[in-house]
Amino acid sequence: MSLTIGVDVGGTKVAAGVVDEQGRILEKLRRPTPSKNPEETAGAIADLVGRLKAEHRDVVAVGLGAAGFVDESRSVVLFAPNLAWRDEPIKDKVEQRVGLPVVVENDANAMAWGEARFGAGRGERYLVCITLGTGIGGGIIVDGRLYRGRYGIGAEFGHIRVVPDGRRCGCGNRGCWEQYASGNALAHEARDLARVNPGWAARMIELSGGSAEVITGLAVSQAAREGDPAALECFQSVAEWTGQGMADLAATLDPGAFIIGGGLSAVADLLLEPIKKAFANAVTGHGHRRPSAVRVAELGPDAGIVGAADLARQ
Amino acid sequence: MSLTIGVDVGGTKVAAGVVDEQGRILEKLRRPTPSKNPEETAGAIADLVGRLKAEHRDVVAVGLGAAGFVDESRSVVLFAPNLAWRDEPIKDKVEQRVGLPVVVENDANAMAWGEARFGAGRGERYLVCITLGTGIGGGIIVDGRLYRGRYGIGAEFGHIRVVPDGRRCGCGNRGCWEQYASGNALAHEARDLARVNPGWAARMIELSGGSAEVITGLAVSQAAREGDPAALECFQSVAEWTGQGMADLAATLDPGAFIIGGGLSAVADLLLEPIKKAFANAVTGHGHRRPSAVRVAELGPDAGIVGAADLARQ
Amino acid sequence: MSLTIGVDVGGTKVAAGVVDEQGRILEKLRRPTPSKNPEETAGAIADLVGRLKAEHRDVVAVGLGAAGFVDESRSVVLFAPNLAWRDEPIKDKVEQRVGLPVVVENDANAMAWGEARFGAGRGERYLVCITLGTGIGGGIIVDGRLYRGRYGIGAEFGHIRVVPDGRRCGCGNRGCWEQYASGNALAHEARDLARVNPGWAARMIELSGGSAEVITGLAVSQAAREGDPAALECFQSVAEWTGQGMADLAATLDPGAFIIGGGLSAVADLLLEPIKKAFANAVTGHGHRRPSAVRVAELGPDAGIVGAADLARQ
Amino acid sequence: MSLTIGVDVGGTKVAAGVVDEQGRILEKLRRPTPSKNPEETAGAIADLVGRLKAEHRDVVAVGLGAAGFVDESRSVVLFAPNLAWRDEPIKDKVEQRVGLPVVVENDANAMAWGEARFGAGRGERYLVCITLGTGIGGGIIVDGRLYRGRYGIGAEFGHIRVVPDGRRCGCGNRGCWEQYASGNALAHEARDLARVNPGWAARMIELSGGSAEVITGLAVSQAAREGDPAALECFQSVAEWTGQGMADLAATLDPGAFIIGGGLSAVADLLLEPIKKAFANAVTGHGHRRPSAVRVAELGPDAGIVGAADLARQ
Repeated sequence: MSLTIGVDVGGTKVAAGVVDEQGRILEKLRRPTPSKNPEETAGAIADLVGRLKAEHRDVVAVGLGAAGFVDESRSVVLFAPNLAWRDEPIKDKVEQRVGLPVVVENDANAMAWGEARFGAGRGERYLVCITLGTGIGGGIIVDGRLYRGRYGIGAEFGHIRVVPDGRRCGCGNRGCWEQYASGNALAHEARDLARVNPGWAARMIELSGGSAEVITGLAVSQAAREGDPAALECFQSVAEWTGQGMADLAATLDPGAFIIGGGLSAVADLLLEPIKKAFANAVTGHGHRRPSAVRVAELGPDAGIVGAADLARQ
Repeated sequence: MSLTIGVDVGGTKVAAGVVDEQGRILEKLRRPTPSKNPEETAGAIADLVGRLKAEHRDVVAVGLGAAGFVDESRSVVLFAPNLAWRDEPIKDKVEQRVGLPVVVENDANAMAWGEARFGAGRGERYLVCITLGTGIGGGIIVDGRLYRGRYGIGAEFGHIRVVPDGRRCGCGNRGCWEQYASGNALAHEARDLARVNPGWAARMIELSGGSAEVITGLAVSQAAREGDPAALECFQSVAEWTGQGMADLAATLDPGAFIIGGGLSAVADLLLEPIKKAFANAVTGHGHRRPSAVRVAELGPDAGIVGAADLARQ
Repeated sequence: MSLTIGVDVGGTKVAAGVVDEQGRILEKLRRPTPSKNPEETAGAIADLVGRLKAEHRDVVAVGLGAAGFVDESRSVVLFAPNLAWRDEPIKDKVEQRVGLPVVVENDANAMAWGEARFGAGRGERYLVCITLGTGIGGGIIVDGRLYRGRYGIGAEFGHIRVVPDGRRCGCGNRGCWEQYASGNALAHEARDLARVNPGWAARMIELSGGSAEVITGLAVSQAAREGDPAALECFQSVAEWTGQGMADLAATLDPGAFIIGGGLSAVADLLLEPIKKAFANAVTGHGHRRPSAVRVAELGPDAGIVGAADLARQ
Repeated sequence: MSLTIGVDVGGTKVAAGVVDEQGRILEKLRRPTPSKNPEETAGAIADLVGRLKAEHRDVVAVGLGAAGFVDESRSVVLFAPNLAWRDEPIKDKVEQRVGLPVVVENDANAMAWGEARFGAGRGERYLVCITLGTGIGGGIIVDGRLYRGRYGIGAEFGHIRVVPDGRRCGCGNRGCWEQYASGNALAHEARDLARVNPGWAARMIELSGGSAEVITGLAVSQAAREGDPAALECFQSVAEWTGQGMADLAATLDPGAFIIGGGLSAVADLLLEPIKKAFANAVTGHGHRRPSAVRVAELGPDAGIVGAADLARQ
């Protein structure tokens, strides 16, 4: 049985796993990312791959997933916000070091592929995957295949503008969807609320060590779990924006299902119903069309490794 | 050489043409649409097809294009705003009447396919076609094939929300893109301007018989051609909203090219440059990605017939 | 008992009345406005005043009300949108013709004064009067006196911006309050609704001769009186914007009462309750302050004549 | 010559000064505010007044200024956000303790009165004073007198809504002017910018100890003084919103001058010109009216003491 290795290259750590044809991870390793130096980053990837390969002789290929723009040949990372990669020929560099064929993919695409093959998207040929983390990552499955667009940069729908002259975004524009529907948006909402109404936000402030300025998404989530109404209000806002954006994507893509993944999927029990409601309210042609399903991702944080490994096999 | 017939079923007229494998129309007929009565509409389509088939013995199939939602089997029109069709099994009805295989497609999809095969999209495998008419129609080409989505309702991107609590839309929502970027939006802009500043809008009012209330997109276009600054201001607004929406689509689809068709493409010389500029300003990751081309449709009003006919051949 | 004459100078007609100290109109005359020619306009005013004065020997002064900017000396109309007056020394011109002292006032200010003295504002020293007509006219009473501002142009609050980048306004700006809360706004709302959803707006279209483009505030009002839900939806929108704007004015002026006058006050039974509700929802400090009363004007279309006449007596 | 004492009761400190008829402060004392306990707060005020009175035998009255809603009789503080006062009869409490007549006034009103009598508003009978501090405080002078409104709560124009569904405000509403034009707004703008673009905001982050979350208005001001373009961009935003809001106030109040005070007036050299420009662009009827002057406050942080003292003399 052939094995492949999936690597998730993040800004702070590199994680790599040996994955079999059923999407099971046989072994997993991780180490810090030397993110400031492209050569060292390539070296760290090769190190993990080498160690796994030494243990698993049947490994035939490697898939890398990284946040950023990947070119359409899946060889070069054009731009990665959390790494020092600019037009980095990472495929070649890693292939030279490890002696195995390598494919590169955007990390959210890799996660989407993992879910499509082995997770919440099994059996559905038209999918939109939304990873709600720091920002929004996206992946699209069209007729059972990963959609990349003409130049490899598709599914960056966190940067659809949802509010003219809205909140600033790291991409340089204003009003991008991920500023309203993400873990950061949840914290933003909570901090705004805490600044203007500290009494109402008292529990979230307490969970954040007493300061309104540093409330994190985690603190909001914990407070929400406890039933804190201020935290639930923040969740409601994020859910409404998520559902609205999904309605906009449905107008374009009409998928069979949406898969909600990323860090916020850990609190899916709090988010899923309000997202579904907001989506149904907002989708165009409601009543004249079959609605897309809305599901929570199943593979958790390993989805990227599993997906990247499987893409290397294709 | 095999021929097919393409039919464009509009709210006021049905047009049908015999099309060869190179997308050339050999003969074309048209008649009014008996739009209130589904049976009569089917009869009118069959009548035109029958007359064309009598002249062209090599016709092997028929493609129908109509505004509305078409199911994923391309057999049933679920909902057509300008016709009396609700869950109308139009494929079966026309097949029974004409004795030829029939496929049904959304009209904007048919146009997109026509342009992709024989028009401005030739040679490009990833396309987004935008028809700026009364509203916005859309078509998406993925890897050389027409994208339909899971349930056949994809590419309805005229109903992406671009302004929260914005202008009302016929779909029941508010703030849909087609309320800001279309022939209707152009007229809307001009009427608003004329109501509040009739002096500045004098030329458009004059071209509309003296009334600000009934300014049409045509009057705005004529005034703009004459260099009227008020009309050009209206065009600028529509161009900016068009470019912004294209940027939102590029974030999701990253196409090789956008094709701008529909009634407004007749004034493409006034629109194209400001659309390109607005698109470049708004697209996320500008500078880190290869930009999508922006082109004007080439087939004009016949694109729908040509596209529907060719889809019947696939 | 001393009498004064109040004159309401509109774009289409001049109306003048002899008014006693209790605000009663003893006699009233009207004639068309020769609005294109400043001299003829002055002549028309003098003609009416002369005829009234011939019948009522006790007349001691004349008050003129006109839409536009009046300077702080109440002598010169700086700008009147519906007349040919630009820096027009109308006080001097009329005084020379009629041999009586003349004061000039903005028409909405005159109406406000009429209501303050003899109408819905009696007994209240701090008032904000809002005339909802074609646009919004305003008048402010401070400690029992008409507020004019430093240069005479106060109380033009129809041009407060309530929506950034909102609907165009005749003043050259965008998003002015009167574009959302006025008779014109009511018609705007109805036309937008009728364009996108003619079925839902069928009654208003029918009352307007079959065309969505020419629906008037009158048609909306009639339909609303009949209970038409589409018309009531338009009323609701105007009421919400009215109440919100009143909340903004209350933040600045904290009046004892708002008086709602102008053409829309004829349908006050439909508007008053939703306006009150929207105002209460929107006012800052709700619960920590005594709320301003909200009342409907009592003097009807004569308020301007009565107010102008009384101002001439002060 | 009669003397009065002005007291500025803040959330963290109480400051009191003896003021003569020319608005000069002869002596000033301050101490921390025991803000959680109404009795102790009254005691602290009485303590300072008693110490000043012991030194200045000619003191005849006391004026208190405090952030909050003051009733129209100037006796009771209905609500003070930074103190524990709710329907607090502070006038009576302090009079009993100090044996002098006391008047109470909103702190921004007191500042406005100080500037009107002895500062930037001298000689102008129609003024709007805007104190840009944590939020926006306001004061209005009408015909040479302080405007209080019917119930004493006028000039709270920081809570005019300028953006529908905009930023949260401590008053419970959204989109209030002070969320866009104040020291807090400046910090908000800078933090948003720093979160999404830390490189561009590097200098402001550095001045804030390395964290984007805790950038203060002070850090933005310092960076702006050094010419930092990111900080100047934040200033530009605040200036534009300030000028727009002033235009809205001018539509209602048409003052002879605006006085800009509060903490941000310390950086008036950076703000004044862009505010003036934004105001001129936004004011309705521009070109047909005499523009209000825009001036910087002259009395600095003592304006409240001077104004409160002088109000006690009236």
